[in-house]
Amino acid sequence: MSKSIFYHAGCPVCISAEHDIVNLIGNDNVEILNIGEVTDRIQEAETAGVQSVPALLTPNGNVLHLNFGASMADVKG
Amino acid sequence: MSKSIFYHAGCPVCISAEHDIVNLIGNDNVEILNIGEVTDRIQEAETAGVQSVPALLTPNGNVLHLNFGASMADVKG
Repeated sequence: MSKSIFYHAGCPVCISAEHDIVNLIGNDNVEILNIGEVTDRIQEAETAGVQSVPALLTPNGNVLHLNFGASMADVKG
Repeated sequence: MSKSIFYHAGCPVCISAEHDIVNLIGNDNVEILNIGEVTDRIQEAETAGVQSVPALLTPNGNVLHLNFGASMADVKG
């Protein structure tokens, strides 16, 4: 894995954090994934250790949970 | 302000997040500040909106709170 993955669910907190992350690490270095819409990747996110969104999965496999927006339970509805 | 500032307090959660942030945005683009040691900059951090550490203050003035480590109240002791 060479890119980071930014998991979000479309909430205002997520969008704000997304802009900050893209500004900081560059659009080419991060995949933006709305798991509120692409629900078949929720399992992948949970396996990676994502407990809430927005969260950034780094290339070395660590998860940085950012400003709390929504829990994974909320995303799954 | 052209650099981000990474505020931390030396806790294990902070150190782990620090390494991830430095890897992602580059050592030259972030000032690392241990406000558990440099306590005279706690006021500056709070004014910027830092509510817990680790936190990243971006060049545009937004604060990204990362994996919760310690509240500012804890840092102040």
